[in-house]
Amino acid sequence: MSAKAMRISFIGDSFVSGAYDLECLGWAGRISASARRRGHDISPYNLGVRGETSVQILRRWRAEAEARQSPQQEGRLVFEFGVNDAREVNGKRQLEAAQSLAAAREILDAGSKWKPTLMVGPPPGADTARNPRVEELSRQLGGLCSELAVPYFDSFIPLSASSSFIADVKGVDGTHPSAKGYAEWASLIDEWPAWREWLP
Amino acid sequence: MSAKAMRISFIGDSFVSGAYDLECLGWAGRISASARRRGHDISPYNLGVRGETSVQILRRWRAEAEARQSPQQEGRLVFEFGVNDAREVNGKRQLEAAQSLAAAREILDAGSKWKPTLMVGPPPGADTARNPRVEELSRQLGGLCSELAVPYFDSFIPLSASSSFIADVKGVDGTHPSAKGYAEWASLIDEWPAWREWLP
Repeated sequence: MSAKAMRISFIGDSFVSGAYDLECLGWAGRISASARRRGHDISPYNLGVRGETSVQILRRWRAEAEARQSPQQEGRLVFEFGVNDAREVNGKRQLEAAQSLAAAREILDAGSKWKPTLMVGPPPGADTARNPRVEELSRQLGGLCSELAVPYFDSFIPLSASSSFIADVKGVDGTHPSAKGYAEWASLIDEWPAWREWLP
Repeated sequence: MSAKAMRISFIGDSFVSGAYDLECLGWAGRISASARRRGHDISPYNLGVRGETSVQILRRWRAEAEARQSPQQEGRLVFEFGVNDAREVNGKRQLEAAQSLAAAREILDAGSKWKPTLMVGPPPGADTARNPRVEELSRQLGGLCSELAVPYFDSFIPLSASSSFIADVKGVDGTHPSAKGYAEWASLIDEWPAWREWLP
């Protein structure tokens, strides 16, 4: 049992909200349920919004996370975004990498100065043109997090190497996994030492 | 399969967020998963915050729900609050019924003029001094919803009559159910005609 009760705000895009998951948990719900089953007193808040880029998340995250703090529990932040930044809409990338990194820096710098903060990187999908852009952005986000001393979980590398994740995404919409894929992703994050340091 | 894709904002207190549910679904997650399994394309957003009264929800709900709208999906609102209003802290009721009803009127009037709106009433618990206050507030919220033509699901009456719900709550913290109690509550809401009219 943890000595610390926590309110954890999971902030990001459709992968945070668990789009297309028939169990409506996503990776955030699964690692939260796993922590509760280990005996931890956590209050998870899912602040994922479909389609959002880092610039859109930058506009809303602070007010929403502030409304979820309490003197009774420690506040914590977990971010995940990037795929929508690298996505092309009508043939145009939604955000250039420099814009993404500027927004991510503003979010993660303010976040980590305020509350203990973790960052989960964007996952690969079935779009082979988009994947290299996501991979490069993930690498850059990892570098930024290293600079800011925010632990970074690289989702892209292990999920690309998985024998099942991309096939699972192909069976959904080419971008999002099914419950099975979310469970695979969650099981990796659940074993991440930075997460387990919060919630052994 | 529904013809309409929906983004549904579930707005309220700890019962919305699913406090103490080892499966991290609450009633909102369970009725959402059930709708997805029936083939509906819904994006649920859980905007429940532990401990909040109607007055606190009034301050934040609109900005948070607005950030979750999209031209690609219809927006819908489901509210649930009331127990924290009727709760005594240091011997003093947090909000008098008149304050609760004024805040609820402001929320539900603005909500229902903006998007299709449903209201779920507050549940009973193991606190026998608080239950009559919650029951009376639930009755008043029902009357207000009737006046505003917002469908109201009375949780208090069927959950008080349940042979298992209060015993389940007693086994948790006296206020919140376990996964089992949330599942029972969710199964009632899932059969509510107003909900099924949205998501057959």
